[in-house]
Amino acid sequence: MNNIGKKSLRLHEKFKGKMKIRSKVALETSNDLSLAYTPGVAEICKMIARDGKLAKKYTIKNNTVAIVTDGSAVLGLGNIGPLAALPVMEGKAILHKKFADIDAFPICLDTQDTEEIIRTVKNIAPVFAAIHLEDISAPRCFEIEKRLRHELGIPVLHDDQHCTAVVVLAGLINSLKCRGRIYGPILSVIPSASEESLNSAKLSNLSDPSSDALLGMTQITQPKIVINGAGGAGIAIAKLLIAYGFKNLTLLDSQGSIYRGRKGLTDEKLKIAKLTNKQKLKGGLSECLKNADIFIGVSLGGLLKPPMVKSMNKNPIIFALSNPVPEIMPGAAKKAGAFIVATGRGDFPNQINNVLVFPGLFRGALDNGVRLFTEKMLIAAAKNLSALVKFPTPQKILPNVFDKRIALTVARAIKN
Amino acid sequence: MNNIGKKSLRLHEKFKGKMKIRSKVALETSNDLSLAYTPGVAEICKMIARDGKLAKKYTIKNNTVAIVTDGSAVLGLGNIGPLAALPVMEGKAILHKKFADIDAFPICLDTQDTEEIIRTVKNIAPVFAAIHLEDISAPRCFEIEKRLRHELGIPVLHDDQHCTAVVVLAGLINSLKCRGRIYGPILSVIPSASEESLNSAKLSNLSDPSSDALLGMTQITQPKIVINGAGGAGIAIAKLLIAYGFKNLTLLDSQGSIYRGRKGLTDEKLKIAKLTNKQKLKGGLSECLKNADIFIGVSLGGLLKPPMVKSMNKNPIIFALSNPVPEIMPGAAKKAGAFIVATGRGDFPNQINNVLVFPGLFRGALDNGVRLFTEKMLIAAAKNLSALVKFPTPQKILPNVFDKRIALTVARAIKN
Repeated sequence: MNNIGKKSLRLHEKFKGKMKIRSKVALETSNDLSLAYTPGVAEICKMIARDGKLAKKYTIKNNTVAIVTDGSAVLGLGNIGPLAALPVMEGKAILHKKFADIDAFPICLDTQDTEEIIRTVKNIAPVFAAIHLEDISAPRCFEIEKRLRHELGIPVLHDDQHCTAVVVLAGLINSLKCRGRIYGPILSVIPSASEESLNSAKLSNLSDPSSDALLGMTQITQPKIVINGAGGAGIAIAKLLIAYGFKNLTLLDSQGSIYRGRKGLTDEKLKIAKLTNKQKLKGGLSECLKNADIFIGVSLGGLLKPPMVKSMNKNPIIFALSNPVPEIMPGAAKKAGAFIVATGRGDFPNQINNVLVFPGLFRGALDNGVRLFTEKMLIAAAKNLSALVKFPTPQKILPNVFDKRIALTVARAIKN
Repeated sequence: MNNIGKKSLRLHEKFKGKMKIRSKVALETSNDLSLAYTPGVAEICKMIARDGKLAKKYTIKNNTVAIVTDGSAVLGLGNIGPLAALPVMEGKAILHKKFADIDAFPICLDTQDTEEIIRTVKNIAPVFAAIHLEDISAPRCFEIEKRLRHELGIPVLHDDQHCTAVVVLAGLINSLKCRGRIYGPILSVIPSASEESLNSAKLSNLSDPSSDALLGMTQITQPKIVINGAGGAGIAIAKLLIAYGFKNLTLLDSQGSIYRGRKGLTDEKLKIAKLTNKQKLKGGLSECLKNADIFIGVSLGGLLKPPMVKSMNKNPIIFALSNPVPEIMPGAAKKAGAFIVATGRGDFPNQINNVLVFPGLFRGALDNGVRLFTEKMLIAAAKNLSALVKFPTPQKILPNVFDKRIALTVARAIKN
C-alpha cells in the first residue's frame, strides 16, 4: 500500500464512516418533541397527504439526493460490489455537501439486474429530490438511466457519463483555447478569432459562457479526437462533444476501434459508430492515435505509451483520466511531446474530475425545479465551468476544485 | 389546526426537513480530498472487496439504520402513503440521533406489496447496520418482518410491534409494583415479596434488572388483562406479556373479542387466539372489561367509556395509548376509578412512547453485534427500563424521555 493509501486507511479507521446525520431542530424539551414529532407532526403529515407537492416545502425531499450504485464499475477497480463501493459513495456524498450543500445519501444496491435496479430506485424515490447514479457499468447504465428519466418524476443523472462529459468538454474548450493562443488555430476549434485577436482583449468574449464563439468549428480543421474506452463515460463524452460541434472522433473499446459494420456491437456502440470514425479506422490505440490531436482516456492505467504520444500531431492534448492510475503519467506524456496533460487526480496539475461538475448540476436542478437534464444544459454547464478560467495555461485549464464559485456557476446552467 | 399543529407547521416551514448530512472528515485541501476520496479511498474499497466484514470498520455501515415504511399505518392517521409519512420518519431519525447517536435515514417506499417491500429492503441493505421497520400495517408487517429477519444478515425490528411491547411491559411491571405496594399483591405479579418487604430496603432487589423476582407469577392471582386492538402493536404486546409470564389476556379487534374458533381470523390472530382468552369471552369491550384489572388500548381515540372503567376490578390500570387522541382522557379515567393512567402523549403524566425503547434497542444491537432480536432480549430491555424508576408512583411509572440513562440501560439488554 502506498503512502496515500496508508493515510487514507488511518482516516477511515478513525472515523468509521465519513458522514453522519444531524438534527436541524432542537430536541431538548417535551415541547420540542411535540413539535418535531408527535402530536404536532400529524398536521404536517395530513397536509402532505392532501397535496404531495408540499413534501418539498416541509421535508428533506427539498434537498436530498440518492447516490445509487450497484458497485459494478467503481473507480478503476471494476465490479467490486455494493459494499466495497460504499467508501466512494460516502466520498461523493460529502463532496455534495461540501461544494453544494446537498444532503446526499448512498444507496448501494445488492443487485446488478437492470429491471431490479430500476424497480428498487422507483420504490425508494419518494424521499429524494433527485437520483445520482454512480459507478454502474455499461451497457446497463444506459438503460437504467433512460428508463428512470422517463418513469420517475425527479431528475436522474448518471455521474460517470454526463458529469465526466461536462468536465471533459470544459477542459477541452480551455485546452484548445490555450493551445490556439500559443500555436495558432490549426488544431484549435476557435474559428472566427485570429491569432492576434486571441491574444488581445477580445479573448474575454470567448470566455463569456453565453457566447457561442467556440461553437462554429466547421470553417477550420476539426481536431482529430481519440477516445479510449467506450463504457458509460466514453460514450457520453463522445455524444456531448458531437453535440457541441466536434466532428472527428474515434472511439476504442477493448476490441479496438469502433466503426460502422463491426460485428457484435451493443446498441449504444452501434449508435455511436454511426456518428464517429467516418474514415472507418481499424486497429488498436497505436493505429488510431497516428496524427490525432487529442487523446481522451477513460479506460485503464498505463495503456498509453510514449511512442503513441509521439505518433500524434504536434503539441497534442492528453486527458489521461483513468483512476487512480492514469493511462500515462504526466511526466512521461510531457516528455513524449504532450502540450497539455490532464488526469483525474488531485496530485498533478489539471485535475479533470467529476467533482467540478456533479454538485453544481444537482444544485441547479434542485434550485430551479428542473425535471430532466438536457444536452443543452450540459453544454451550458461546460461553458460556464470553462469560463471560470479566463486565461487558461497548459498548467491550468480548469479552476481549482476548491474555487468557491464553481458549483453555483455550473448550477446556473441547469434551468428550464 | 390546534396550537401545537400551528407551531409544528412553522417549525417545518422554517427548516424544510428536520435532518441533514454532515461530513465527519475535513475537506479543505487537495490532500484531504485524496484521503477521503480518490485516490486514497481505492485502498479501502479493495480491502472491503476482499473482506466484507471490514465495511463495519471503515464505513457508515458501522452506525447507520434504515427506517423503512410504506406509509400504510402512520401514527393514528392510517394509510397516508410514503410521502406523507416522511415527517414522522424524519422525527424517528433525529430521535435515534438524539438519544442513541445512531445515524438513521428514512426509506419511504412507493409500494405496499409485501414481496416488493421485502425485495426492496434486501436490495438496499448493504449500507445499513440494521433495519427499523415503521408504520407498516398488519397483517403485512408480520410477514415482512419475519422474512427479513430470516433473509437478511442484519437485525430487523418492527418498532410498532416490539418497541411498543417493551415499553408497555416496562410500564406494567412498575404499575403492578406500585399498585401492589399500596393495595397489596392481589392484582400484583410480584409473588415472593410480602407487603412489608416491598416497602423496605429489599425493594431495591426487585428493581435489579438481573433479578427475576418479578417473573414467578404462578403462585398468586393473575391479573386479567384486556388489550383493545389486534394489529401489529396489540399482538406483539400480547406475545411479550405471555412470554414474560402473564396468563390471563383477552384481545379485541374491530369485530370484538378474539377467541379460538372465531371465523375469519388471520394467521396471526389464529395463533394469538390459541394463547389467550381461555374462557372464550365473547362480545365487545363492555363485555370483556368486566372484572378486568388492566386495559391496554392500541386502537382508536375515545373508545373507552367511564362506565367500562367502573366495571373493571378495583383500582384498575389503564394504558390508553392511541395517538394523538387516547382511548380515554386521563382525567375521565381517574374519575371513573383508575389507579394508574398512561397515554402515548408527552403532555400527560406516564408517557408510554416507543422513543423510550427504539434508540436503546438499536444501539445495543449495533454495539453488541446482535444479529437477531429475541424475546428474551426484549424482556430484559423492559426490565432494565422499568428498573430506572426505583419507586414508581401512580404519577410516574417510567423515566422521563430525556433521562440520559435510558438508551444505554436498554441497550445493555441487547446482547447475545
